[in-house]
Amino acid sequence: MKGQQVLYFITGNNNKFAEVRDMLPNVKQLDIDLPEIQELDPEEVVKAKLIEAKRRRKGAFIIEDTSLYINSLKGLPGPLIKWFLQSLGVRGLAELACKYKNRTAYAKTIVGYLDTKGKYHFFEGVVKGKIVKPKGNTQFGWDPIFMPDGFDKTFAEMSTDEKNMVSMRKKAITKLAKQIKMK
Amino acid sequence: MKGQQVLYFITGNNNKFAEVRDMLPNVKQLDIDLPEIQELDPEEVVKAKLIEAKRRRKGAFIIEDTSLYINSLKGLPGPLIKWFLQSLGVRGLAELACKYKNRTAYAKTIVGYLDTKGKYHFFEGVVKGKIVKPKGNTQFGWDPIFMPDGFDKTFAEMSTDEKNMVSMRKKAITKLAKQIKMK
Repeated sequence: MKGQQVLYFITGNNNKFAEVRDMLPNVKQLDIDLPEIQELDPEEVVKAKLIEAKRRRKGAFIIEDTSLYINSLKGLPGPLIKWFLQSLGVRGLAELACKYKNRTAYAKTIVGYLDTKGKYHFFEGVVKGKIVKPKGNTQFGWDPIFMPDGFDKTFAEMSTDEKNMVSMRKKAITKLAKQIKMK
Repeated sequence: MKGQQVLYFITGNNNKFAEVRDMLPNVKQLDIDLPEIQELDPEEVVKAKLIEAKRRRKGAFIIEDTSLYINSLKGLPGPLIKWFLQSLGVRGLAELACKYKNRTAYAKTIVGYLDTKGKYHFFEGVVKGKIVKPKGNTQFGWDPIFMPDGFDKTFAEMSTDEKNMVSMRKKAITKLAKQIKMK
């Protein structure tokens, strides 16, 4: 990252930004609103946002999508999680998932990186777990209903340090940081 | 519609076009691909497409969205129906809905009309019914799992004439035709 162009992580979420800056000290936060296309493939969702970001200014960009994928629902809601929560609420989503015997699910982060040469790169981080009835602080999305494998707590019941230990975002960003440092 | 600007119905579906032309003889079919925004409110989905159509050419435009709304799922899938079918299949969607006691659902068409003065109008047509296991030709979307009230057949088991009798699209277009003729 010694070129003259800045590397932006596009997010309105300061916690996400802090997590990324820990691994990529040169990154700058850019809080702009980019339209989200209707797509089940998170790479397509992220790529469309990178294209729009590039249209608006010069630089290299990082954008991430973190979604919940429920196996009995063949991977739904995925990037549609926002609408499931808006319609059903987190409790309703857990009720739906718990109507199936198989309650396994996974949290997946896709990090998209558009480099200064205009090339797209994608990095994935996955945490496996299961859906449970809401436990813990119910204010943050689907955290209260996702219990990662090897834990007896939902994301919403874990401390920040505990959560960082199993962060799907960290897994994806680590891969990105490795690629950037190799260059 | 005696102005110099043409009224376009934007659709790639010839059957839908025929249904509309029956009621609005001056309408012309325009088969262009407009991006679909991620939204649960079908009026917003239709409006975004009308705005894009207007950007591309002069004229008045009609665009419709017909979706399936399942009451136990608080109105999901609605405009997200495409992704539910892609993930779960029509059989999987019926299985999901049939896990709830309340199997009522409704089919809703929203017709958006952008007139030559740049004003937006919306018209709604609703058909109530319930979700059943797939019956009839399973090739067309959610037709095999939706049984309208007062019938013992799914949409997929009905003849075109029978379907037209209970068409949510016809209900919405009838309202639109009335408005256009009043002008």
